[in-house]
Amino acid sequence: MKTETKLIHFSEGIELESGEKLNSFDLMVETYGELNEGKSNAILLCHAFSGNHHAAGSSEDFGIGWWDQLVGPSKTIDTNKYFVVCCNNLGGCAGSSGPSSIDPSSQKIFGKSFPQVSVLDWVNSQKMLMDKLNIECWHFVAGGSLGGMQALQWSISYPDKVKKAGIFAAASKSSSQNIAMNEVARESIRKDENFHNGNYYEHNVIPKNGIKTARMLGHITYLSEEHMDSRFGRKFQDEGSKVEESVSFEVENYLQYKGEQFSELFDANSYILMTKVMDSYDAGKDKTLVEALKDVKAELLIVGFYSDWLYPPERGKEIQIAAMNNNIRSSFVVLQGDHGHDSFLFSSKTYSNLITNFIES
Amino acid sequence: MKTETKLIHFSEGIELESGEKLNSFDLMVETYGELNEGKSNAILLCHAFSGNHHAAGSSEDFGIGWWDQLVGPSKTIDTNKYFVVCCNNLGGCAGSSGPSSIDPSSQKIFGKSFPQVSVLDWVNSQKMLMDKLNIECWHFVAGGSLGGMQALQWSISYPDKVKKAGIFAAASKSSSQNIAMNEVARESIRKDENFHNGNYYEHNVIPKNGIKTARMLGHITYLSEEHMDSRFGRKFQDEGSKVEESVSFEVENYLQYKGEQFSELFDANSYILMTKVMDSYDAGKDKTLVEALKDVKAELLIVGFYSDWLYPPERGKEIQIAAMNNNIRSSFVVLQGDHGHDSFLFSSKTYSNLITNFIES
Repeated sequence: MKTETKLIHFSEGIELESGEKLNSFDLMVETYGELNEGKSNAILLCHAFSGNHHAAGSSEDFGIGWWDQLVGPSKTIDTNKYFVVCCNNLGGCAGSSGPSSIDPSSQKIFGKSFPQVSVLDWVNSQKMLMDKLNIECWHFVAGGSLGGMQALQWSISYPDKVKKAGIFAAASKSSSQNIAMNEVARESIRKDENFHNGNYYEHNVIPKNGIKTARMLGHITYLSEEHMDSRFGRKFQDEGSKVEESVSFEVENYLQYKGEQFSELFDANSYILMTKVMDSYDAGKDKTLVEALKDVKAELLIVGFYSDWLYPPERGKEIQIAAMNNNIRSSFVVLQGDHGHDSFLFSSKTYSNLITNFIES
Repeated sequence: MKTETKLIHFSEGIELESGEKLNSFDLMVETYGELNEGKSNAILLCHAFSGNHHAAGSSEDFGIGWWDQLVGPSKTIDTNKYFVVCCNNLGGCAGSSGPSSIDPSSQKIFGKSFPQVSVLDWVNSQKMLMDKLNIECWHFVAGGSLGGMQALQWSISYPDKVKKAGIFAAASKSSSQNIAMNEVARESIRKDENFHNGNYYEHNVIPKNGIKTARMLGHITYLSEEHMDSRFGRKFQDEGSKVEESVSFEVENYLQYKGEQFSELFDANSYILMTKVMDSYDAGKDKTLVEALKDVKAELLIVGFYSDWLYPPERGKEIQIAAMNNNIRSSFVVLQGDHGHDSFLFSSKTYSNLITNFIES
């Protein structure tokens, strides 16, 4: 698979939804396959909360791509046929401009001063990337969770630039409970003694404990209760392989391990910023969702998973109903999903066929 | 209402399920009403995770009792007719022996050295209290959540001492997800810089931030998604009444407020101990639940709430099925409940009638 990873600079900067401006910015971009002569085979993948530009294949820095089960030569999204683009979103911590990168104007790390961005800002910056890559229309824009919100927003903001959109395990807005969970995660980060009000870089420390706790909680929301019960149940952790002395059950050990691992890799300010993006997204803000979708021209494939309790299938159904009210060609499918919210990341025969047929139709 | 609050000393001590022994201990006990001559009107109320001995009426130290909506003169559990007993459980922090009380052998605060107790230990200590109060048989033992687990265990451990048991919003064991949520709460406490490995008393500090985060998470699990959506939705918090500058939404402000309030009142080591009691409870441990219930003589009233996602109605149904397999007289009722898991705390006409009819029948 032809893979290119590069940092692209946007010297023209970007006006953000908040009214603030970034005078210039960088996006870390990865592409797979090749753009055809007619420029008709481009696909944009939008990553979820903790994802990045590395969607497929294996890289030294990022291991196996987050959607490698579905993206690659002869896979669901076939990189022999399509030119697939993925970028680390603005505010992230995998190479694109974000709180942990250098502010060109001060030559210091942005830290807390990096402006709050939004799903719309991400879509607008991806549109700038699209122009730079000389792509006139995306054949398909897709993502799961927060990535699905971007796919939805693409079809709203740029109706002539998206032929098909895939909105998986997503919602048109976060619920009160979603926001509440994110606030607990943020609270644990902010109150870490090493957070230093977001200026931990200057102190050469990271608020590792806070990020760990946040991620442990996040992890519970990504898995379903059934999945946890069948995988861990009430099994005790054997003494020899305890990550922490205090754990009794396997599920505790698993969360401790996952949280610890993540806490070394993800920037705390990005964690706060990304969760705020998720909370603030509301496709129908200041109007109804039906009105928000009125100019959409893309065909929509909306997939929900029964085992997903973070963005349960009802959230997808709301999008489908608003689409139907606008006579938008759309399909809404609910799959069982064995991995709760995370089900969108995993390939299954039904899920894979659905997506391939939708893209090829 | 005749109310008595007293600290009762048990110089004989107690052997714990863990094999450890407390050489002596105290229970903080509150009683309402009067024991009749036949000693046939005694009711034991078992408190949930963060409850205490103060179940009804108003006290200077503890405000309105945790079950005041249902317990009092002419209320659901009528203190004109019944002698109602409630004690703060061993390991708690409202007067009974626990991590924050003085170890008589060392004259120092127990702290982390207070032994891990269990639901069975609580029931055994309540049995010792029963003997001290000259009660021969409880007419009714009841509780919600962790309190319901105690009511269930009473009917298993002391079949001749319980006529009726009320098991509300409870389960015969915690699920993998329940344990996972508790572990996140414990993690946030243990990693608070003021926790000092559980010896914060010596440093004259409390791990306030950790308890606050833990409680914020707990609170989400006590409320239902529907309740949160209808109460808070996506409403923004007005600037003038923000508890923390960082909050955007009302639901965040609410959690911040609730967490802050609780963090001043509850002992961190008790929080860890109580959640470990919840995690470790498994009525059918080492056998099946059907076998565990085989000697039960009490009549059971099991109530679940549709809006409860911490211990959803299926958990109550498991108890009912095991009871039916043993020909135990039992009723299983699922109510809507407007408050998620917390619904067991609130009076409603149906819930109240159910309980009164069950007690009086």
